Amino acid sequence: MRERLSTILPPIGWLRDYHRTTLAQDLLAACIMTVLVIPQSLAYALLAGLPAQAGLYASILPAIGYALFASSSALAVGPVALIALMSATTVGGIQAAGVVDFATGSLVLALLCGMILFIMGVARLGFMANFISHPVISGFISGSALIIMLSQVGTLLGIPSGGSTVPSLVSSIAHSLGRFSEATAAIGIGSLVFLLLARRYSQRLLVAMGLPVGIASTLARLAPMLVVVVTAVVTARSHLDGAGVAVIGDLPAGLPDLSLPAIDLPLVEVLLVPALLISLVIFVESTSIAHGIAARRGERLDANQELMGLGAANLAAAVSGGLAVAGGFSRSVVNIEAGARTQLAGVFSAVGIALVTVFFTGLFHYLPKATLAAIIIVAVTTLVDFRALADTWRYSRQDGLALLTTLLLTLFAGVIPGILAGVALSLMLYLYRTSRPHVAVVGRIPGTEHFRNHQRYTVETDPQMVILRVDETLYFANARYLDDCVSELVRQRPEATDFVLMCTGINTIDASALETLEAINTRLRSAGVRLHLTEVKGPVMDRLRRTRFLQNLSGEVFLSTFDAWRTLTDRHSLSTSTIDSSSENANPSGAH
Amino acid sequence: MRERLSTILPPIGWLRDYHRTTLAQDLLAACIMTVLVIPQSLAYALLAGLPAQAGLYASILPAIGYALFASSSALAVGPVALIALMSATTVGGIQAAGVVDFATGSLVLALLCGMILFIMGVARLGFMANFISHPVISGFISGSALIIMLSQVGTLLGIPSGGSTVPSLVSSIAHSLGRFSEATAAIGIGSLVFLLLARRYSQRLLVAMGLPVGIASTLARLAPMLVVVVTAVVTARSHLDGAGVAVIGDLPAGLPDLSLPAIDLPLVEVLLVPALLISLVIFVESTSIAHGIAARRGERLDANQELMGLGAANLAAAVSGGLAVAGGFSRSVVNIEAGARTQLAGVFSAVGIALVTVFFTGLFHYLPKATLAAIIIVAVTTLVDFRALADTWRYSRQDGLALLTTLLLTLFAGVIPGILAGVALSLMLYLYRTSRPHVAVVGRIPGTEHFRNHQRYTVETDPQMVILRVDETLYFANARYLDDCVSELVRQRPEATDFVLMCTGINTIDASALETLEAINTRLRSAGVRLHLTEVKGPVMDRLRRTRFLQNLSGEVFLSTFDAWRTLTDRHSLSTSTIDSSSENANPSGAH
Repeated sequence: MRERLSTILPPIGWLRDYHRTTLAQDLLAACIMTVLVIPQSLAYALLAGLPAQAGLYASILPAIGYALFASSSALAVGPVALIALMSATTVGGIQAAGVVDFATGSLVLALLCGMILFIMGVARLGFMANFISHPVISGFISGSALIIMLSQVGTLLGIPSGGSTVPSLVSSIAHSLGRFSEATAAIGIGSLVFLLLARRYSQRLLVAMGLPVGIASTLARLAPMLVVVVTAVVTARSHLDGAGVAVIGDLPAGLPDLSLPAIDLPLVEVLLVPALLISLVIFVESTSIAHGIAARRGERLDANQELMGLGAANLAAAVSGGLAVAGGFSRSVVNIEAGARTQLAGVFSAVGIALVTVFFTGLFHYLPKATLAAIIIVAVTTLVDFRALADTWRYSRQDGLALLTTLLLTLFAGVIPGILAGVALSLMLYLYRTSRPHVAVVGRIPGTEHFRNHQRYTVETDPQMVILRVDETLYFANARYLDDCVSELVRQRPEATDFVLMCTGINTIDASALETLEAINTRLRSAGVRLHLTEVKGPVMDRLRRTRFLQNLSGEVFLSTFDAWRTLTDRHSLSTSTIDSSSENANPSGAH
Repeated sequence: MRERLSTILPPIGWLRDYHRTTLAQDLLAACIMTVLVIPQSLAYALLAGLPAQAGLYASILPAIGYALFASSSALAVGPVALIALMSATTVGGIQAAGVVDFATGSLVLALLCGMILFIMGVARLGFMANFISHPVISGFISGSALIIMLSQVGTLLGIPSGGSTVPSLVSSIAHSLGRFSEATAAIGIGSLVFLLLARRYSQRLLVAMGLPVGIASTLARLAPMLVVVVTAVVTARSHLDGAGVAVIGDLPAGLPDLSLPAIDLPLVEVLLVPALLISLVIFVESTSIAHGIAARRGERLDANQELMGLGAANLAAAVSGGLAVAGGFSRSVVNIEAGARTQLAGVFSAVGIALVTVFFTGLFHYLPKATLAAIIIVAVTTLVDFRALADTWRYSRQDGLALLTTLLLTLFAGVIPGILAGVALSLMLYLYRTSRPHVAVVGRIPGTEHFRNHQRYTVETDPQMVILRVDETLYFANARYLDDCVSELVRQRPEATDFVLMCTGINTIDASALETLEAINTRLRSAGVRLHLTEVKGPVMDRLRRTRFLQNLSGEVFLSTFDAWRTLTDRHSLSTSTIDSSSENANPSGAH
């Protein structure tokens, strides 16, 4: 019983073996993480269009919800930039139509994401995430990061700006650029420059000062907290909030009330598709971080447990006034570097943030929003990856096209159209590619049992025999193409009496392709050509045996192409020739 | 110049070689076809919800338009049942919203189909049709035929009925069943029984009477014309049109005016998606018939010419008061059996129908609609194919599921949702299948150079070496799956030092899969396991050479798996064993 429960709630398993030393490590990590994640929690709440405390709330219960189901020992869950942006865009879109207030919309969105993720986990639909290709994710993340940076420029300079695409953001910034606040811009740009320099040099500096690398690395990560403290103090001392510097202001002290957001059906309807996409992005982003951790620690990651964990985290966020959450890269790195051993570190850190929320929110009153904007901008610069575009393009035009399309649509049409179009395009490109499979007319490499493309190798051929290798599973989208190839080859070789289909690359044959093979068999028979198959894979053969195709086959099924060659050339008068140019058109997808 | 023109307008080519004997054959075929296709032309116009003359108009100009571009010598184009039904459903749906009158809607739909088909032909998008699988087409045609039959029951019995799905049709028939017209039902059911008997026995009877098979077959096809004449004469003589028998009534004499239908943008918007689907169905249905003809006659069919031909036909239908048209099966069979040699037969037949339209429409005044309903029902009975469902299900559950879903949705949700869901489902099932590829841990068949699945064959294995064969192209949707397989295998075999990936079934590796391979390589290296590749196909290797993957590869690329075996076992201490049960879990997709 306990065994079964612990597969669903992993803590039941690992808490049994929990040692005092592990507890010490987790507690230390939690303390460090609590301090380090507060600035970004506040910042991402603002990015999501919510009051800053929502970011703190989203770092408390969700971390505990995730820990209940998680299979990753160190993934840290909380507000992240990408999801905050998607949430802001989605809710902003429907809010413009006057359907709902922003806070409610964000909570309902988190609730839907939580439900979708949890249900996907229970239904074991973790594989769904595989349908988003790496180039699409890469283009989407780069595009979103650029949008996020642009969206913070207004806050950084103290001017009003808005929009969710590059054109709308640029035009709104350009429109008010002349009216920027000098004090705000000084704080914002100052913070930005400091953070960029700190990221580049602080660790090296600390190491040069004699600190061990581990401690130096953790201390270097304190830069955002340092900026928060310094700019808040300066703002308070110099009364800059009276001089046009927007500050966070009073945060409500105390823990959030637990309550379900007000749900109505029309709202759910408009949010459902975005929620599905955001859920996929939450899952893909979180598991790609978690996979990295698991690989480094030699752990096993269970995609469906992760889905349930992320689902629980988002449900927890929805009932506690937070926002949609995901596994965060920088949070997780902090967690690991601080020495976290188990998910208890995340739970302890949640308790720490809860304490801050209860006792210390007053500290953030004078925190300039421009500081948070600078923190966001620096955090997302690492996400922009133009080299991936170049590398991917060089490797494969199709993948490059998918990446570029996703990137451009994310920038110019918005995050939701961007990822939607990317997923659709990459699936279509894959289908298109498999619909025009690579085929090769092969011949025997003299003196061997090997058969290779006659356009790449000097091979023996028998004029009465055509041997075609198809390098793709046969299914409805390429059945007609095969049909055309065979027709064309037989038309070009009127002397052929035997057509051999070499099936090494054919992993399945679906019903449409089977019908096509039957049609090819019938047509070849009436043209006086026998159809043979060679090297049919076990599972394919099992399936063919259930049909009448093998009985109607005009030729034979040979175990190996060499068997076919030996048997058939014995029947014909063997003639050896090298590459015959007449069949060059027979390889429509080019010479490979 | 003429050469180039004749590739676009094939008649320029074949008219040069046109002989007097061919002319005689085409003329004879045209006369027979003219008489035989009139009943169905009238009937399908009624099925499409249009006045009967639209069916005649749609058999004149469209046939000529098609002949201009067609690559098929004998495909006959005109109104067909399936497209008439789809047109009626689509226009009925938007007409219910009060957007437009029925006739205009039908013409705009034909215009859109014509434009879509023609543009697809020019853009060489003929391959698009391949994405509709045979099971989906089969389920769609069976479902549509059943809907067509049900839709004619009301007309057959002389009761009002309507609807475009089984539930709506059945309830509307049940609602008025008590008020059926005795005279109408007598004519309708009488015609139905006669036509069914004629189809079954007339040819045999005529042959038994001493007629040659060819003539008997053509005469047997006169049964619908005979029913038309007899029921019209009986109705006229007995003044049954006064006794509640609905007749065609006065048809306007003369040729249709040529004019573009009134187009407005909102109408085009609502019709665009249905028009796209109907265009695909027109194309798929027509080319499947044309492929059959081409195979029998040893001709080459050019999918893009066919698209242009069908596009021209539908544009011609739109400007001449017709309805959306396609290549018809029974029309084409009549054409071939009557001895048509070229598309001129279709053109002559169009002239014949034009003459009928000008001079003889009065003959159809007393033709009962119930007779046409009987003709439609008998014509579509051959389209219902439940055996395909059984056969497909037995061969492949996935294909069977696609067929059944399409069939049921066509019956219960309508033709457009049916085909849409079918296409989407079959693509998703294909993607799902390829996302969980078949993999096999292989070993050496003792004494040979062959490597086979260790669960199917008794093989030699080396405990320090895992050889995995992946039977699928590697792409984003299955990259993670491969990753998990490899991790699991290495976890189960802690003594392994070499992991061999046998690439016989890998036809391409996309950017996502490449990244995953790089991650696998890195992870295996840190676990002290070298990754080797064997039997990498030429095009895949070309592409890998453009990356840093091969330089970073911890192991080697071997030409054959046997090379790898020989080299690696030399390094290890060779141990021979039979199937080791510990690795049974390693083949998650079952033992093949």
